[in-house]
Amino acid sequence: MKVTVIGAGNSGLAMAAHISQGGHQVTLWNRTRSSITKLIDQPVIHCDGAIGGHIPFHRATADIQIALENPDLVLITTPAYAHKDLAELIAKNIKKETLILLNPGRTFGALEFRMIYERYNQKYAQVIAEAQTIIYTCRRTGADTVHVVALKSGVLLSTFNASENPGIIARLPDCIRGFFIPAGSMIETSIGNVGMILHCAPLLLNAGWTENETNIYKYYYDGITPTISALLEKLDHERISVSRILNHPVETTREWLKRTYQIGGDTLYECLQNNEAYKKIDAPKTMQH
Amino acid sequence: MKVTVIGAGNSGLAMAAHISQGGHQVTLWNRTRSSITKLIDQPVIHCDGAIGGHIPFHRATADIQIALENPDLVLITTPAYAHKDLAELIAKNIKKETLILLNPGRTFGALEFRMIYERYNQKYAQVIAEAQTIIYTCRRTGADTVHVVALKSGVLLSTFNASENPGIIARLPDCIRGFFIPAGSMIETSIGNVGMILHCAPLLLNAGWTENETNIYKYYYDGITPTISALLEKLDHERISVSRILNHPVETTREWLKRTYQIGGDTLYECLQNNEAYKKIDAPKTMQH
Repeated sequence: MKVTVIGAGNSGLAMAAHISQGGHQVTLWNRTRSSITKLIDQPVIHCDGAIGGHIPFHRATADIQIALENPDLVLITTPAYAHKDLAELIAKNIKKETLILLNPGRTFGALEFRMIYERYNQKYAQVIAEAQTIIYTCRRTGADTVHVVALKSGVLLSTFNASENPGIIARLPDCIRGFFIPAGSMIETSIGNVGMILHCAPLLLNAGWTENETNIYKYYYDGITPTISALLEKLDHERISVSRILNHPVETTREWLKRTYQIGGDTLYECLQNNEAYKKIDAPKTMQH
Repeated sequence: MKVTVIGAGNSGLAMAAHISQGGHQVTLWNRTRSSITKLIDQPVIHCDGAIGGHIPFHRATADIQIALENPDLVLITTPAYAHKDLAELIAKNIKKETLILLNPGRTFGALEFRMIYERYNQKYAQVIAEAQTIIYTCRRTGADTVHVVALKSGVLLSTFNASENPGIIARLPDCIRGFFIPAGSMIETSIGNVGMILHCAPLLLNAGWTENETNIYKYYYDGITPTISALLEKLDHERISVSRILNHPVETTREWLKRTYQIGGDTLYECLQNNEAYKKIDAPKTMQH
């Protein structure tokens, strides 16, 4: 199966390595050529942690036409702010119908992607779907190295018509298929986006620490303190209320953590502290995301 | 002169010591008796820094009736959230007309204080005034010890009718009088409250770091990073715009820092970094203020 992975960040490297290790032909595309020069010269990703080994893959490229030559599947792993530009870029360059999966879609990313895609390409309709989150808890440690702390189970996936979800999961490479489960609606993947709870407020509430050059902290383990956790539980309550009003109730962030990482805890703070995977995740060093 | 200092926190200790050293009879009142047991037993404040020495004073008490027996002046040094309760408590216990000065008033503290005071006491009218900020940059280091990093010059003071301001300053003990200047209006002390810029957003944006038990940071020097400073300059711009619309333009926080601490700098960040007094100020250890 020919898989194009868009983005060579934390998740892109893990996904490209994982799928190539699974026996598929992976093309890894990154917008900034300088970030992947090493991988263009030598397409091998060095993994450690939950995925291990020196994993060769088909090719790396910064040329979108090469990346979109004949893919069976396009997996987008960039942050959500890049989706808009990518939808336009892919629309202008793709020459076939295929499946495009946003890993993750964050909040209605697939909807935004489809609206922009259709503005630029009416010839090749795409099946566009989104995942609730990325299936890897990982950090890129160098140009061609990635540390995979954990793989998440039961990650929700949805397209616009939820009845198509099982069929979409069946079209994924066998090695990643088992990590996804079909959502009942895109509301479940989009309002079920726990990143809006775990990423935005905690980073803001740690702005000073993040920018400090000498103090490194663990993002979830140190950065989400009891007070911040209590605030997040309140924000989460709003998110859950919205999903209930839309008739597709989603899990609380606490329930999601328990299910995804098989951990216990009576409060969000306890769940975060009990998650071994989170103890290793460094905070970002800048507010520019 | 008989001076009652309300509050035995950072500023209260510095102010009680400073005025007692200046030859006046100081009564220091604190709501929580346990915090001042040592000072009740032995009314001596140990100062170091800009004010030095083992400074005896008249008495410490947790009894408001004793504190308000016959003061020539009441100086309130508590955080602004305590003003409301204090206005009621003082109204119910004071038996004479005098001058009550909020150090500082923060934003229209004198207005709030007067409204509540007059609800409970129509017999003894008070002259109520507010300072823009406290005249000390200081930290309490123990039950009876305080480190005074610096004394601020040109601190604005105002009552409701600004023409009375020079007369109010003349009523202050000689040893603190010279640090105050009369404001043109209470708008200048209240909208001129730089604490709303330097205290609220930075503490929120350092919530995680503040709650962390092992990492101590310097509040202004480490905590107000380039990004946070840039945000504060924008908040400050709003504050200045409000003061202009009210026809009493106030200084920017940067201008205030330059004037108060006699320092230079082209940006707020540079001014904060150039202020030697701020390099020594530890961050609070909790979000409960």
